[in-house]
Amino acid sequence: MIFDILSLFPQMFASPLGESILGKAMERGLIETRLHNIRDFAFDKHQMTDDRPFGGGEGMVMKPEPIVEAVEFLRKTRPTPLVVLLTPQGRLFNQRIARSLARVPRLILICGRYEGVDERVAEHFTDEQLSIGDYVLTGGELAAMVVVDAVSRLIPGVLGNSASTDEESFTEPLLEYPQYTRPQEFRGYRVPEILLSGHHEAIKRWRRGQALIRTRTRRPDLFARMTLTPEDEELLRQASDEWRGRLWKESE
Amino acid sequence: MIFDILSLFPQMFASPLGESILGKAMERGLIETRLHNIRDFAFDKHQMTDDRPFGGGEGMVMKPEPIVEAVEFLRKTRPTPLVVLLTPQGRLFNQRIARSLARVPRLILICGRYEGVDERVAEHFTDEQLSIGDYVLTGGELAAMVVVDAVSRLIPGVLGNSASTDEESFTEPLLEYPQYTRPQEFRGYRVPEILLSGHHEAIKRWRRGQALIRTRTRRPDLFARMTLTPEDEELLRQASDEWRGRLWKESE
Repeated sequence: MIFDILSLFPQMFASPLGESILGKAMERGLIETRLHNIRDFAFDKHQMTDDRPFGGGEGMVMKPEPIVEAVEFLRKTRPTPLVVLLTPQGRLFNQRIARSLARVPRLILICGRYEGVDERVAEHFTDEQLSIGDYVLTGGELAAMVVVDAVSRLIPGVLGNSASTDEESFTEPLLEYPQYTRPQEFRGYRVPEILLSGHHEAIKRWRRGQALIRTRTRRPDLFARMTLTPEDEELLRQASDEWRGRLWKESE
Repeated sequence: MIFDILSLFPQMFASPLGESILGKAMERGLIETRLHNIRDFAFDKHQMTDDRPFGGGEGMVMKPEPIVEAVEFLRKTRPTPLVVLLTPQGRLFNQRIARSLARVPRLILICGRYEGVDERVAEHFTDEQLSIGDYVLTGGELAAMVVVDAVSRLIPGVLGNSASTDEESFTEPLLEYPQYTRPQEFRGYRVPEILLSGHHEAIKRWRRGQALIRTRTRRPDLFARMTLTPEDEELLRQASDEWRGRLWKESE
């Protein structure tokens, strides 16, 4: 999988892409990231990449020419890329979109800056506009890194253990259950007994109940999109009782 | 504002934090980021930071001791920090939360890895758990960078022009209007005439209409949370008519 990244600050990507799982995936040739400076495609004599907005207002807007020149240059080579603009005005990136992008052989990621990119770029020269969340960043660079990271780890072979992509958050709209490791008791706080029981079926049911109750509590928006089975209803009731029992004990 | 970042890969932060607006804000002493390696707080002889999950399952879970040792060490110094764990199971980070964090003098950001952090850390040793979106990353590092970036730019003085934080996305749950800059015509695509008119009041109304219609189209979830004034309703109707007119013209 190839990521072509268009940015005014390509140096920003050096350390996050070089480390850990992504760094290893690159060494092994599973992913390739190519950094391009948008300024290199600004062919006027001052190499201008931004200008004031038509209609007035604060800040600067990124000019269409350098970005479109860069996209067209990259489009000349294979494989055919999907062109994505990172912008707070885009579709909200999620795990489902990550999975669909992981099937694309090549992505061009355009990082906006300042007050954004001239709208004609988004409208006529990109395939997709994505936002990573409802907050404002100083630029699209971190958003592009998030997309590269979330997509890369879904590519076969990137994670050592392919099983760990399966049973995790957002395969369905459900938060993950709590995880515990040694020691059994830490500063007086014990691991839930059931996890030490060795009863795999009971553990699985307890985990499902925990995942359901924390989704309902923390993310009612996700919970509302779920369809509960009768067993889910029962597990949720048990988890609620346990939760109330624990609060009761703590307040004693 | 001080950010203390706890990570197994503190080197990941070098290039994103060194560049552009954040880099300048640090040079000017407006923000300070301190990177701490969680492994330095693992005091057993193998400096273990993770272990297998109780109850079975794939992957590794980050042990509680090194993280809590680090948090307690940092808590000994002033100003009193707010402790935030980055995790897909957290509250969804947004611009409102960014604004509230920008008023805190010091944040400790804990970056999880692998299958997550022992739940006792989240439950008993943090003040807040945040997720930057409904996707899975290889670790909390990019999430921490996103929080540092979104929060930092709200700190007075960090952005050159304080006005540009006001009129932008998510102050209300509304996407921004489209921006255009020179040239007036690019590859046959023209800037909307109204923006060249010089009628500031009409431009303001057009922009509001555009913001409303793109929010309704792209982010019905945000749109549902809005309360429209009668003027908004009218602007939205005008923008819809214009939009249909444009599609009509393109299909001619």
